Amino acid sequence: MNRSMIRYLLGRVLRIEAILLLLPLFISFIYHETLGLMFVAVALGSFLLGMILTIHKPESTVFYLKEGCVTCAMSWITLSLVGALPFYLTGEIPSYTDALFETISGFTTTGASILADVEVLSKCMLFWRSFTHWIGGMGVLVFLLAIIPMSGGSNINLMRAESPGPSVGKLVPKIKSTARILYMIYMAMTLIEFVALLIARMDAFEAICTAMGTAGTGGFGVRSDSFASYSAAEQWIVTIFMILFGVNFNAYYLILFGQVGRAFRMEEVRTYFCVILAAIAIIMFDTIHIYGSFFTALTHASFQVASIITTTGFASADFDLWDVTSRIVLVMLMFIGACAGSTGGGIKVSRFVIAAKTVFKEIGGYIHSKSIKKLTMDGKPVEHEVLRSVNVFFITYIFLFGLSTLLISIDDHDPVTIFTAVTATINNIGPGLSAVGPTQNFACFSISSKYVLMFDMLAGRLELFPMLMLFTPNVWKEFLHPTSRPTYLRKK
Amino acid sequence: MNRSMIRYLLGRVLRIEAILLLLPLFISFIYHETLGLMFVAVALGSFLLGMILTIHKPESTVFYLKEGCVTCAMSWITLSLVGALPFYLTGEIPSYTDALFETISGFTTTGASILADVEVLSKCMLFWRSFTHWIGGMGVLVFLLAIIPMSGGSNINLMRAESPGPSVGKLVPKIKSTARILYMIYMAMTLIEFVALLIARMDAFEAICTAMGTAGTGGFGVRSDSFASYSAAEQWIVTIFMILFGVNFNAYYLILFGQVGRAFRMEEVRTYFCVILAAIAIIMFDTIHIYGSFFTALTHASFQVASIITTTGFASADFDLWDVTSRIVLVMLMFIGACAGSTGGGIKVSRFVIAAKTVFKEIGGYIHSKSIKKLTMDGKPVEHEVLRSVNVFFITYIFLFGLSTLLISIDDHDPVTIFTAVTATINNIGPGLSAVGPTQNFACFSISSKYVLMFDMLAGRLELFPMLMLFTPNVWKEFLHPTSRPTYLRKK
Repeated sequence: MNRSMIRYLLGRVLRIEAILLLLPLFISFIYHETLGLMFVAVALGSFLLGMILTIHKPESTVFYLKEGCVTCAMSWITLSLVGALPFYLTGEIPSYTDALFETISGFTTTGASILADVEVLSKCMLFWRSFTHWIGGMGVLVFLLAIIPMSGGSNINLMRAESPGPSVGKLVPKIKSTARILYMIYMAMTLIEFVALLIARMDAFEAICTAMGTAGTGGFGVRSDSFASYSAAEQWIVTIFMILFGVNFNAYYLILFGQVGRAFRMEEVRTYFCVILAAIAIIMFDTIHIYGSFFTALTHASFQVASIITTTGFASADFDLWDVTSRIVLVMLMFIGACAGSTGGGIKVSRFVIAAKTVFKEIGGYIHSKSIKKLTMDGKPVEHEVLRSVNVFFITYIFLFGLSTLLISIDDHDPVTIFTAVTATINNIGPGLSAVGPTQNFACFSISSKYVLMFDMLAGRLELFPMLMLFTPNVWKEFLHPTSRPTYLRKK
Repeated sequence: MNRSMIRYLLGRVLRIEAILLLLPLFISFIYHETLGLMFVAVALGSFLLGMILTIHKPESTVFYLKEGCVTCAMSWITLSLVGALPFYLTGEIPSYTDALFETISGFTTTGASILADVEVLSKCMLFWRSFTHWIGGMGVLVFLLAIIPMSGGSNINLMRAESPGPSVGKLVPKIKSTARILYMIYMAMTLIEFVALLIARMDAFEAICTAMGTAGTGGFGVRSDSFASYSAAEQWIVTIFMILFGVNFNAYYLILFGQVGRAFRMEEVRTYFCVILAAIAIIMFDTIHIYGSFFTALTHASFQVASIITTTGFASADFDLWDVTSRIVLVMLMFIGACAGSTGGGIKVSRFVIAAKTVFKEIGGYIHSKSIKKLTMDGKPVEHEVLRSVNVFFITYIFLFGLSTLLISIDDHDPVTIFTAVTATINNIGPGLSAVGPTQNFACFSISSKYVLMFDMLAGRLELFPMLMLFTPNVWKEFLHPTSRPTYLRKK
C-alpha cells in the first residue's frame, strides 16, 4: 500500500477544503455575520494540517485500485469531519454528531437534515450547507485529478473509486483534461440555472443556494418548507435543471463536441427520460383528485419525480400524504436513481438497463437452449467484467441495505420510516416517508442509528466498495504493514 | 416445441389429480359429509379429460428445457384450476377467484388464505386444503418422473424446471430412483410427525392436516387462530418438524446412505441453522418483555422463526404486534427462505451463501488487484453457470417484486400491507404484516390484485422462469408453430 501517496493526497484535500471554507466568509461579510469568522479559524487549521501532510512529496506515485479506494473513502471522511466544525464550533448545531450528519449529508449530496427549522441558521451556514452539495456533486478527487500530476494509469484508479456508474468512460485519452471539461460543464450549467432563477425573481442568495443544491443533486433548501412556497415558475426552472443534472455528463460532452445524434441515442439517457415521463403520468393521474387542476397536479408530479429520480430531494408538496401508488412509484424512483456519470445517486439507470437486458437474455436462453447473442449497450457489446460488477453491486447493495435496516430498527420506529430512511440515505435522496417524510427530519434517530445512516450516505455516494473496504481487516493489515508486492504474489 | 409430449404429460397430471381428489372422500365418509361426493364428480371429469389427452402416445420423448418449463407452468396452472372446483362447486368458497387463490396458495405451499374463519369449512375441504400443501411440497412432476419413462436426459429438463434451488444435484445416476427416494423420505418424515402429534394428544384429523401442512411447508391450519390455541408440546413438535422440512433433502439422502459427516458439513445446512439460531436469539431478546417468561418467549420466537424461514406460515402468536426489530427480522427471513432442495420457498439459503461469497471475493479483488481464488461451496468450485444463474435470479426477482408491488398498490392499502403481501406470496410464506398479518387474510384485495398475487405464488414456487416464460411472445410463437430445430439455428 502506497502510504506516502495516500498521506499526500489527503493533505491536498485538506488544503483544498481550507480554500473552500473561505467562500462562506464573503456571505458573512455581506450579511454582517460575525460568526463567519469561525470559517477562517477552521480553514486555517485545515490548511496547516494539510501543509504538514504535504511537506514530503510521495516516494512513488504508483497507485493501485486499493489505494484509490482507501484514499477516496478517507478523503470523504476527512472532508466531512472538518466540514462539520463550523456548524459545531459556532453552536448553530450543538451536537457534533448532528453537525457531522448534516455535513456528510451535504457532501454526499443526500440532503437529509437533522434540523427542524433551517431558517434560524445564519446565512453563511446556509451557504456552506448548499456549497457542500456543489462540491460533493462532482467529487473532490475528480477536481484533484485536474491539478495533480500522477504517473500514467494511476489516476484512473482514483477516478474509478469516486465516479458513479458501472464503468468509467474514457472520453479523452488524458483523464486530466476530461476532469477539467466535466468541471467546466458543471460550472456553466450551475451559472445558467442561477441566472434563470434570478430572472424568475428569486432572491439572489436563495438563487445561488438553490442552484448549487440542484447542481449537486443535493436537496438542502434555505426554507423550512423546502420548495412549497416558491412560485410555479421557480419550481419549473428547478424541475428542468434537476432533470438536466441527472443526465449522464457524457451526453453533454458529446453535444459539446458536435456529436448531438450520438448523445440522443444513448440508451441510458433515453431510458431515463422514459422513466421520468411514465412516473409523472402515473403520479399526475393519481394525484389530480388532490390538486383539482391538471396544471397543479402536473407541476407537483413533475417536481417530485425530477427531485426523487435525480436523488435531489427538494419537495414542492408533502408527498407523504399522496395515495399509496404515488408513494410507491417515488420509492421505486429512489432506488433507480439518476444516470451514471451524473451528479445523482441511486443504483443508476444504466445498471437497471443492463440488469433488464440480462433478464431478457436469460428468458431467451431458456427458449433457445444456448443463446448466442451477446448483450449490447449503445450498439457495443457489454464486457463480461461490467456485467459481473453490475451483479455484484446489486447483491452487495442488498446485503448492506438489509444490515442497515436491521441496525436502525433498534430505534423502534414504524417499518415505513425505517425502510425509507435507509432508502433515502443509501441512495442519497434526502427525505423518505412517514417520520422521515418531506416535512419531517432525521433528528428522531438515536446517535448509533445516525452513524449507520452516515455510513450509508458515504457508501451510497462512493458506490459501496471504497467504504466497505475500510471495514476489511486485510486492508488495515496492508496499510499498517505495507508490501511493495501484492499479497497474492507474496503468498505463493 | 414438442407439443405432443406436453399434451401427454398434462394428461398424466390430470389423471394423477383425479386419484388425489378421491382421498378427501374418505374423510367425508368418516364425518358423514355428503358434499364430499362433489370430489367424485370433479375427479371423474379430471380423469376423463386426462384420458382424452393421453390416448395418443407422444411421437417423441425428446424434451428441451423450454418444454420442461412450459409443461411445468401449465401443469401447476391446470392442477390449480381443477383443484379449485370442489371449493367452488360445493359453494364453500362462493367466488371462483377466491377458490383458485386458495388452491394455488395450497399447491404452491404458500398458505395465504382468503378465508376469515376456516372452522366453518367441512372436514373434507379442510383435508383437501392441507393435502394440496403436501402434494405441492415435493412437486407433482417429480412424482411423474418416478413413474413415466422418458428418453435419457430429457427428464432432467423437467426436474430442473420444478426443483427449487440454484442447481439440481445429480445424487444418483438415474433421476427416476432419486425421485422415488426423495418421495420415500418425504412420506416417512410426514408419518413420524403425525405419530409425534398423536402422542402429544392432538386430535387425529388435526394431526394429519398439520403434518401435511408442515411437510409441504404450507401453512394452512384447521383452526382460525392457526397455532395459538395448541399446547406448548404440540407447538414444539411442529417447530422441530418445520425446521427439518426446511433442510436440503440431499442431507437426508446422505445420512440415509451412511455419509453423516458429509451431511453435517454441508455449508447451506450449517448456514441455515446459524440463521435460525441468530434469529431466535434476537426475537427472544426483543419479545421477552411481552411474554414475561423466558420459556414462553423462546417457544414463540422459535415457532415463528421456524415457520417463517421455512416459509410455512403457521403462527403461534400475532407477530404483527411485536416490536419493529422482530418484525423486520421475520421479513428478512421471508426473503432468505429455506434450503434449496427442501419443500420450502423463498430465495433459498444457498443463493445467499453464494451471493455473500461473491461480495467477499469482490472486496478481496479490490485489495489484491486480480484475485486468483475461485469461489467454492462444500469444498468444490462453484461453476460459472451457477454463479450467473444466482445473479440473474436475484435481478429477475427484484424486477418481478417491483412490478407486483406497483400493480397491487392500486388497491390503496398501506405500504406495509402491500410490501409484505407481495413478500409473503412470492416467497410462499402465507401471512405478512399489517392488513395481511397472521390474524388477517387476503380477502381485502381486489380481484385483479388477487391474480397478481396468484401469479407471484406460482412464480415463487417454480423459481420465476417457467411462469415468466408463459408471458413471452416467442414461447407462444414456438408453441403454435413448432419447429424441430431451435430458432437460433433456423435464423442463421
